[in-house]
This record gives sequence, C-alpha cells and structure tokens, in this order.
Amino acid sequence: MRAHNLALVLHTVANSADHPSRAAIAAATGLTRATVSALVDDLIAGGLLTEIDPPPRTGAGRPAAGLALTSAGPAGLGLEINVDYLAACVVDLTGAVRQRFVEHDDQRPAGAARSLTALGALAARARLAAEADGLTVTGAALAVPGLVADGGLIRVAPNLGWQDVDAPALLRGVPELADLPVTVDNEANLAALGELRVTGGDPTFLYVSGEIGIGAGLVLDGDLYRGVRGWSGEIGHLTVFPDGRLCRCGANGCLEQYAGQEFLAGDEPLAARALGIALSAVVNLLDVPVIVLGGAYAPYFGRLRGGIEAELDRRVLTAGLAPVTLRAATLGADAAMRGAADTVIRAVRDDPASWLRRAG
Amino acid sequence: MRAHNLALVLHTVANSADHPSRAAIAAATGLTRATVSALVDDLIAGGLLTEIDPPPRTGAGRPAAGLALTSAGPAGLGLEINVDYLAACVVDLTGAVRQRFVEHDDQRPAGAARSLTALGALAARARLAAEADGLTVTGAALAVPGLVADGGLIRVAPNLGWQDVDAPALLRGVPELADLPVTVDNEANLAALGELRVTGGDPTFLYVSGEIGIGAGLVLDGDLYRGVRGWSGEIGHLTVFPDGRLCRCGANGCLEQYAGQEFLAGDEPLAARALGIALSAVVNLLDVPVIVLGGAYAPYFGRLRGGIEAELDRRVLTAGLAPVTLRAATLGADAAMRGAADTVIRAVRDDPASWLRRAG
Repeated sequence: MRAHNLALVLHTVANSADHPSRAAIAAATGLTRATVSALVDDLIAGGLLTEIDPPPRTGAGRPAAGLALTSAGPAGLGLEINVDYLAACVVDLTGAVRQRFVEHDDQRPAGAARSLTALGALAARARLAAEADGLTVTGAALAVPGLVADGGLIRVAPNLGWQDVDAPALLRGVPELADLPVTVDNEANLAALGELRVTGGDPTFLYVSGEIGIGAGLVLDGDLYRGVRGWSGEIGHLTVFPDGRLCRCGANGCLEQYAGQEFLAGDEPLAARALGIALSAVVNLLDVPVIVLGGAYAPYFGRLRGGIEAELDRRVLTAGLAPVTLRAATLGADAAMRGAADTVIRAVRDDPASWLRRAG
Repeated sequence: MRAHNLALVLHTVANSADHPSRAAIAAATGLTRATVSALVDDLIAGGLLTEIDPPPRTGAGRPAAGLALTSAGPAGLGLEINVDYLAACVVDLTGAVRQRFVEHDDQRPAGAARSLTALGALAARARLAAEADGLTVTGAALAVPGLVADGGLIRVAPNLGWQDVDAPALLRGVPELADLPVTVDNEANLAALGELRVTGGDPTFLYVSGEIGIGAGLVLDGDLYRGVRGWSGEIGHLTVFPDGRLCRCGANGCLEQYAGQEFLAGDEPLAARALGIALSAVVNLLDVPVIVLGGAYAPYFGRLRGGIEAELDRRVLTAGLAPVTLRAATLGADAAMRGAADTVIRAVRDDPASWLRRAG
C-alpha cells in the first residue's frame, strides 16, 4: 500500500503542469494531507522530489511550497547501436537529457564484439560525466536495429550482419558498466516509446524509423504492440514491388531497397512512392490515424510528404472518410536512445519504493 | 453482486467439458453451495440452465444431477448480406445452429433497400421456425462487406455499390422483425469472432475472408482489433502490384483484383502469389503467428496453400526463426453469420440477470 501510494504521489507531481503543493496532491489523490506529507518527506529524503520556492504571495495566507521531480538523483542510460553510428545519453528523472554522445562510424565492418566494446566506452564516458554531475545511473537500455528475443539476445540484425549476439553480456565486460542492469530492445520500438512519452499526444500511431534499414513501432491505445514473439514492426521488409530490387533479406522489392536512407538524397520521388504504398497497407490493415516519420526521414519530411500523401489518398480505402495525419518525429534521430533512457526512468517512477530501499 | 454471480455460474457451466453438479460449480467458483443452489434454481426457472440425468452410479452415494445450458430459451439471429448471397441463421444458447437459410443471388443490381427487404423476409422465416421450435430470438446481428460506423450505419460497401445505408432502420421495416434489436458489423470481423469463439484455440490470428471482396478480422490476444474508427482489416485493398489492375476503389493493384473469389477458379497461382505477398506484409508488421483462410478460400485451401507459403517463406523476415501457421477456416462460408448470432448469445451469457428480468 505504501509502495502504491509513493508511486501515486510521484506520478501526480510528474504529471502536473505546475509544482503542486502537498495540499494539491492530497486533493488530486484522495489521500489525507498527513499521509501525503509523510510520503512527500520520504520522497524528498530519498532524492526523488525537491521543494520549490513558492511564487510571490498575491493574496492572503502563507503560500505553500511546490514540489517537483528532482534533477539530481536517479538517471537512465540510453544506448543505441545503428548501422552508421553509436550513441549514448543520460536522462534524469524529469526527462531532461544531461549527457549526449554520438559517434558516427560505419559499424558493419566492426562486428558485434568491437561495436559493443566501442559503445561500452562511450557509455562509460556518459555515465562518469553524469555521476560527476550528481546523478546516479540506475540502469541502461540498448536500442538495436534488429530482432531481439527474451533476455536481450539479438537474434538477427540484418543490416549489421549480426546473428545471435548476447549484447548484455558483452556490455558487462566493460568495467565501468559491469554493475549496471541492461535491457535490449528494437530501436524502432524504443523510438516509438520515446515519441509517445516525451511528446504525449496521440495514443495510436505508427512510428517509422528510417535508417539504412527501416523499422516501425506500433503504438495502439497508448501501448506498444510487440507481436506474439516481439517481432512486430518489420515494415522495411514489406513488399512494395514484388519483382523489384533484391534485398539483404533475400526477398525482392522490400521497402528498404527504395526508401532506406541511402536512397533518400538522390531518389526522393521513388522513396516517397514506396513509403506511401507501404504506409497505405498499414492504414488499410489497422485503421491507424497518425503516422510519425523518424530517424533519417525527419529532416527529409518536407520533401517526402507530398509523394507519400498522394499514395495514401489513392490507396487507403477510407481516405475520403477520415484523414491520415503524417508528421515528422519530434525527437529526430535521438528518439531511440531517448526512449531507451526513458524506460529506465519510468521503472523508478513506477516503483519509487524500490529506489528508496536502495538509496536508504 | 447477484448479477455478477449469475453470470459466473452460467459461464462455469458453459465452459465445462462435462455437465457439472452444483457442488462442482461451488468448488470452481468459490461460492457457497447454498448460494450456487439458489442461483442455479433461478437460472433453471428462467430457462437458461437445465438439469441432466446423472450418469449410472458407479460407486457409493447418490449421483448428483449435472447442469447444462438449455437448448430451448434464448437464441440469436445471425444475418449476412454479401455480394452474391443472403443468409440467416438462428443459434441457441449452447451455440448449436437451429435454423439456417441461404439464398444465392447477385445483390449488386438490387440496391440496399431491396436486398434488406429480401433479407428481412429470410430472417422472418428463420425466426418463426425457431420460435415454433420453442426458442426465443432475443436480438439480431448483421454482417456486411463494408465499413460500418457507430449506430450500424453502413458508410461504404464498395462491392455492393452501397453508401450510407441505415440497415437497422430498413430491417425494422419488416413487421416480423420490428421488435428486435439489430446490430451491424463488418463481415470479416464477425467471421473472425465466430472462428475465435466457436473453435477456441489461437488467441492471436488474422482471419481472411475471401468473397468477391476480401476482408480481414484481426484478433490480438483474444480480442478483435477494430482500429480507431472501427475500419481495420481492409486487406483487400493492400497494394500487391502498384501498377496493376484497376480496382473498384480507384487504386491500382489491390489484392482483390488478383485473389477475389472470381479469380480463384482459373487463376490460383496468381491468386496464391498475391495473397502470399499481402499476408507477408501482415506478418512482417504484426508478428501474427496464425492465418486463417475463410469464406470462398476455405474450399480452395489445398490448392492455394503451397503458393502462399512459398511467398511467406521468402518475404517474412522471421520465417526462419518462427513458423507461420496457415489453415482453412473451421466454419467455412457460415463463419460471419455464426459470429453474428454468437454476439447475441454472448450478450445473454454475459448478463443473464437482464434476461431473467425480461423472462420473469
């Protein structure tokens, strides 16, 4: 009950537009003011909440102190390996990015062990800088462009040429990270979660992540839909031209071969047409009202939009009845690592009692 | 609380493999034997349960009477309008089909009003025959090959040439049905529900209904996924050949133009290839492990299977990691009207207290 109420109070502060007082929290939660005060004291002592000076008094009475999530305290380490870059960021409890490191380098020749060692070094730098800044990194999540099985085993990352890579074990081999729990997830899934949580807004959308490969994260009614084996969202391998270009996966005419980032600069009309055909399939199948274009698509959005919308208008059966909203991702290329870091932060927010036990 | 417990007892009997005694129901539900006995008595008096003679005694003691859903009492009227037939069935509380009428006739020249009048006559015959047999039809559900809005308004049924048809109002114009509540839903959705409920089994599957048009019902974790506006499952308008045949919807290369039932007899290899391309898209997007082919596809299943599986093997990224099961629908062409009738029956099973109030 106390664990539940601690989370309730923390969420109430996190979701408030302003800095609520203890009395406002009591009113919002239905808890007594005495209970709220005791819980708030524990959350302040544990380094999760902080008191904010009251605004200048405008009427009678003593203004109450407001409460806010602390920008010290626990933090999440978000990691990403993609085909042509490595990235690490540290996000604090308020969601602010406190450290951000990106290394552009083709990972295909390196192989999994060398890529993960290089990422480990980047992550260690981010962690040390964050801890020097007063934060405590409580866990890490890694975004990869591939199919991830339970336990974080990367079954296949076709555009990296990886197969059956135990990423958490390799990261634990980096001394500065050895104590940190690491989860692994598909980069488009994490980017979709990042977009959902950081920007709020639409509860149902398809997030499309355009890199060398193309992935998608499907958010239905506020939840990521992962599929039965966790392998949903492989939109890059939707067939757009059945007898078309040969794909790295062995099939012909996959979307990736027309709208992967390497085809964008020179070939946008075809990329937009191919994307429009694939996205029309998604809307016809799932009645998804919003499509978010992320990764390398975000900077090309203005040039892709018209061509995609022309295909949606022609090919979506319900186009005349209800519009499909197409928009660029808010977080740009950082969405996946932001989403990754957010999963760590969210675990603290959802279970502050565990954090307090560890901190105490 | 009594309403909840009545439903609990009824579901316990419905989901039992054998005919449970009052004592077995008490054990399964955690209710006291006295409470169960009182609830069972009410359900028997209200015509929802019936007592079954105990099996011949095999040991010591008096064998207890078993309980079963009644095959008299409430029943559901399932209706379907499709491009080339009208159909009506009555299903009793046990799920058994008690009346079944199918009229093969091209509905395209008739127009909505005449089709619904003809369906109304068929439905009235089914209802009268069922009521002469001791059943009470409590409601009707209508399956249509089109997009249905809230309130049962059929926005578009492209292959019937219908637009904005108020089917419940037209059916209420048939005197023998005027008192009956009628709901309307997409035929593939209802067929998927029929397949889910009548056959049990897989909680996540795509049901594909092959008629003149092609629709799909997507069942995720035991629930129909309808989409934000209720318009999911329009698989017939997935693009398989972007510059291909012109579809009735105005786009080129829709699946319907290669794998609709009119193309099956002469052209199975192309139909199977087109289906395989479209179904690969579904599996890549949603990681759905089971695909059920229904409607006109069921009798062609043996001839379509190889061609579809060849495309799935080539085009599904995870084909090597996890198999996709392809099977023919168990209910064949009756799935949609069976699913429709089942929604009526399910409403009685989920809320027996309302039925008892009406019956008493």
